[in-house]
Amino acid sequence: MKAVVHEGKAGFEGLEYTEFLEIQPKVGEVVVKLKTAGLNHRDLFVLNRHQPTDPPLIIGSDGAGVIASVGEGVTTVNVGDEVIINPGLGWKENSDAPPPGFEIVGLPFHGTFAEAVVLPAENVEPKPEYLTWEEAGVLSLAALTAYRALFTRGKVKPGMKVLIPGIGSGVATFLLQFAKAVGTTVYVTSRSEEKCKKALELGADKAIDSNDDWNEALGGEKMDLVIECVGAATFNKSLDQLRPGGTLVTFGASAGDDVQINIRSFFYGQFNLLGSTMGSTEEYKEMLQFIQEHQIKPVVDQMYPLSQFDQGFDRLKAAAQLGKIGFYIG
Amino acid sequence: MKAVVHEGKAGFEGLEYTEFLEIQPKVGEVVVKLKTAGLNHRDLFVLNRHQPTDPPLIIGSDGAGVIASVGEGVTTVNVGDEVIINPGLGWKENSDAPPPGFEIVGLPFHGTFAEAVVLPAENVEPKPEYLTWEEAGVLSLAALTAYRALFTRGKVKPGMKVLIPGIGSGVATFLLQFAKAVGTTVYVTSRSEEKCKKALELGADKAIDSNDDWNEALGGEKMDLVIECVGAATFNKSLDQLRPGGTLVTFGASAGDDVQINIRSFFYGQFNLLGSTMGSTEEYKEMLQFIQEHQIKPVVDQMYPLSQFDQGFDRLKAAAQLGKIGFYIG
Repeated sequence: MKAVVHEGKAGFEGLEYTEFLEIQPKVGEVVVKLKTAGLNHRDLFVLNRHQPTDPPLIIGSDGAGVIASVGEGVTTVNVGDEVIINPGLGWKENSDAPPPGFEIVGLPFHGTFAEAVVLPAENVEPKPEYLTWEEAGVLSLAALTAYRALFTRGKVKPGMKVLIPGIGSGVATFLLQFAKAVGTTVYVTSRSEEKCKKALELGADKAIDSNDDWNEALGGEKMDLVIECVGAATFNKSLDQLRPGGTLVTFGASAGDDVQINIRSFFYGQFNLLGSTMGSTEEYKEMLQFIQEHQIKPVVDQMYPLSQFDQGFDRLKAAAQLGKIGFYIG
Repeated sequence: MKAVVHEGKAGFEGLEYTEFLEIQPKVGEVVVKLKTAGLNHRDLFVLNRHQPTDPPLIIGSDGAGVIASVGEGVTTVNVGDEVIINPGLGWKENSDAPPPGFEIVGLPFHGTFAEAVVLPAENVEPKPEYLTWEEAGVLSLAALTAYRALFTRGKVKPGMKVLIPGIGSGVATFLLQFAKAVGTTVYVTSRSEEKCKKALELGADKAIDSNDDWNEALGGEKMDLVIECVGAATFNKSLDQLRPGGTLVTFGASAGDDVQINIRSFFYGQFNLLGSTMGSTEEYKEMLQFIQEHQIKPVVDQMYPLSQFDQGFDRLKAAAQLGKIGFYIG
């Protein structure tokens, strides 16, 4: 089968669209013939974590397709079922952190940028019927991350004021859609005028330029909740925007890992800073139910044939997208 | 009456034990003749916040004494009642942050380092009978701060592993006593061998040198909860000691305000960083009930006559104390 494989060289240099041996399902596993797959920032990090001396690896965490075969003991799905992939391995019930041994599809196990992927049967769920293959393929990792950050960690409630800095990413667009579906007032920031415009079309109540003075641009509005994935570039602006007792959930640091905070202002503000990443199978199922209830569709930015995977990576690296980038496969 | 008054010069220089006009109670207020008062770090901060050009101010937040007179409309207390002072003004019910207008006794309103203080009637509670005047006088601010940090914010539960860096301060000793009363395993740190020894006598399960490698000294034990008031000097060591999904409550920064944290490690750890300060009247009453239930007595480090207030301040500034420093008044 054809697959995007990382081998021999660190980083993007080691990535190739090539022939790869099909893998057979073991007990409890299924083979999914992929229709579509979704690109995530994680796929970039994986290229540095997967070493040139490691065995070749098919990358990719998101995907949707059709069950092609099932291993021994699998009773929950049948050949021909249309499914969406939950990329979390080994984190079943909700808990305050994943258990030891938790992994994500696409490292160290083979991922979804291929004509087929082998997974535990519990990692596939029926594809929501109202979603296209494009939408289903790019949903999982970002929507799950947004769901845990906003609901489990941020404890979002109707009527809250929610700020989402850096509205471009897939997770950010889900955050915007989810937060609006709950009945909050949503403020977003972006350095791109075009992204601000699109965010307003998607339902944001106000979109401001990330480079502006936020407090001024937001008319002094303070936030109940800020969901922050930009990192160092916006972190203190985000903290400054909290109301006393407000909460900042952080789940990303694409613009810098190291932040300096003033602890005294932080505790006088009675602030909450909560880290979040991914989510459990339980949260994945809750998320699927939530999007079906509210008929939420992923914002698909661009789809490319898998053979042109490099174009997708280029667009992600340039942060040119609004929403999700994906690949056509089958 | 005699009082410790701040006037004319910034900082400690402006402080004097001197004659001061007695104040009369207004509607809803009471006059407490003080038996004892307690010294807090706040009394040091106040000396810099109270400007030389401001009217003279009696400082001090903690105290206990006897009701000497009551203003019009006061029905909850009577002359002669033995009372303990709740130093929080204007934060009644529990909430995630104090309401606007919240103040603490001793700035901008006159405080407890005097023969008498005038307060709203709701700011006095019956003195717990099992406490001496010394113990009652030094209790309030530190015990309330510890209570909110540990219970409301830290959500401490029996069986948890709790770390308290810097065991010297009054709040830290309350944290230790409260956490042990709940049924947790408590680890403490101090740079002083003597304080480590005293902490073990007070019930700490393990006491380590703050300068050591904590992970090694604690045998690799990770914590459910760290209650941190040291600030920059220990902050990252505290964060490193959290188990995945663990919580760090911060309510002080005596050793530096500015900390640098790695956001990526923070969100991968699914950590919680929660700011806390003081507490509501509701929490104050809960705290009084809790200490009476568990017969917890403040650790009194040293008592001085109020006229020798400078000796108490010297001891606090040198961080020489374990527990609370207080003053005899009446």
